[in-house]
Amino acid sequence: VKVSELVERSGVPLPTIKYYLREGLLPAGTPTGRNQADYGDEHLRRLRLIRALIDVGGLGITAVKEVLRSVDDPGQFGHEVRGTAHYFLTRPTRADRSTAEWRAARAEVIELIERRGWQVNPERPEVDQAADAIAALRGLGQDDLMTLIDTYADAAERLGEAEVSVIMQRPDRAGAVEGVITGTVLGEAILVALRRMAQEHASAQYSR
Amino acid sequence: VKVSELVERSGVPLPTIKYYLREGLLPAGTPTGRNQADYGDEHLRRLRLIRALIDVGGLGITAVKEVLRSVDDPGQFGHEVRGTAHYFLTRPTRADRSTAEWRAARAEVIELIERRGWQVNPERPEVDQAADAIAALRGLGQDDLMTLIDTYADAAERLGEAEVSVIMQRPDRAGAVEGVITGTVLGEAILVALRRMAQEHASAQYSR
Repeated sequence: VKVSELVERSGVPLPTIKYYLREGLLPAGTPTGRNQADYGDEHLRRLRLIRALIDVGGLGITAVKEVLRSVDDPGQFGHEVRGTAHYFLTRPTRADRSTAEWRAARAEVIELIERRGWQVNPERPEVDQAADAIAALRGLGQDDLMTLIDTYADAAERLGEAEVSVIMQRPDRAGAVEGVITGTVLGEAILVALRRMAQEHASAQYSR
Repeated sequence: VKVSELVERSGVPLPTIKYYLREGLLPAGTPTGRNQADYGDEHLRRLRLIRALIDVGGLGITAVKEVLRSVDDPGQFGHEVRGTAHYFLTRPTRADRSTAEWRAARAEVIELIERRGWQVNPERPEVDQAADAIAALRGLGQDDLMTLIDTYADAAERLGEAEVSVIMQRPDRAGAVEGVITGTVLGEAILVALRRMAQEHASAQYSR
C-alpha cells in the first residue's frame, strides 16, 4: 500500500512516519517510482510496535531504536532481546548508590535471588533498581512493608512463568521476540494499573 | 539540629534543602536566631520521603508538593491520600483514546473490575491506563498475552490485600498515610524489578 494508506491505517501522521523512516526505525518500503514506495503489513505492525513502546511504555526514540535493533537481529534469542529491552526500559534512577545503606539493600536483593533459586545475572540493572527502592523503604523506617518482599517475589514468579510460557508457545522467533517486548512493556503497564485498582478495592474494605 | 547537620544526615545538599523550604515541601524549622533554625527528626524524615518520591518514584516537584499536601491534610484518610498519590504517579500516556479499539479495551477493563467484584471508581486514571496497554496489545495481535489478564488480576489482588493489611496495622494516621505513599511508589518499583528478574529466570529454564 501507499504511505498515505499507512498513515490512515496506523493513525500515525505522515511527518512522523517519514521521521521513523529517516531514523531507520521503520524499514524502507519497496520503491514503485520516484518518491513512491509500497508498504506492507510488516510496516503497519512495526509502526504499532513503535507507538506502543513510545506512547504506553514511555520509551524515547534512542531506546526504541536499540530495542528494535535487538528484535531485528536474528542471532539474538528471546532471552537476549529481553535483556536489551529491560536495559532500555530502566528509567535511570537518581538514588545515591554510594552509601552503606544502599549496599545493604543490594545484599538483600542478592540474598532474595539466592533464596528463591532464581537464575539471574546479578549485574542486571533491575537488581540495582530493586536495591534503590529497598534502601529508600528502609531509610524511611518502613520495615513492616519489607515483610512483604516474598509476597512480591511469589507474584513476580507466577507472572514470569505464565508470561514466558505463553511466549514460548509461539511458533517463530519473530513472534516470540515481539511477545517479549510487548509483554515486558505492556504487561508491566497492565500489572501496575491493576495493582493500584486492587489496592483501592482492598482499602475500601477497611474504610466501610 | 542545625541545617548543616540536616545536610549531613540526609545527604541532601544545602541549596536543595533551601529550595524545598522555599517551595514549602519541607516545613520551616524553629527559629533560634537571625538566619538560624532548629530542625528535628520530622524534617529528616520528610526529606527522605521527598527524595524517595523524586529519586525512585520519578515524581516531579509539583507532584511531590500535591502528594505531601494530601499527606499533611489531617482530614484526608489513607484511601483519599492513595487516590491523590495514584493520580500524580500516573505518567501521562500519549495513547490515542479516541478510537473504537480503545473504547473496546476500556470496556474490557470495566468488565474485569465487575468480574473480580472490585470496588473501584471507573473514573480513576488507572482504568484508562490499563485500557491504553490493552488496546496496544490487541492492536499488535498479542491476544495470547491477554489470556493472562486474570493471572495479573490475581497477583494484583493478593498484593493489594497484603499491602493494605500491613498498613492498616499501623497505630496512627501519619504512619498509615506515609505507608500508603511509600508502599505505592517503592512497592511498585520493587514489584517491577522482581517481575523482570523472574522473567529472566523463567526464560533461562527454557533456553537451557
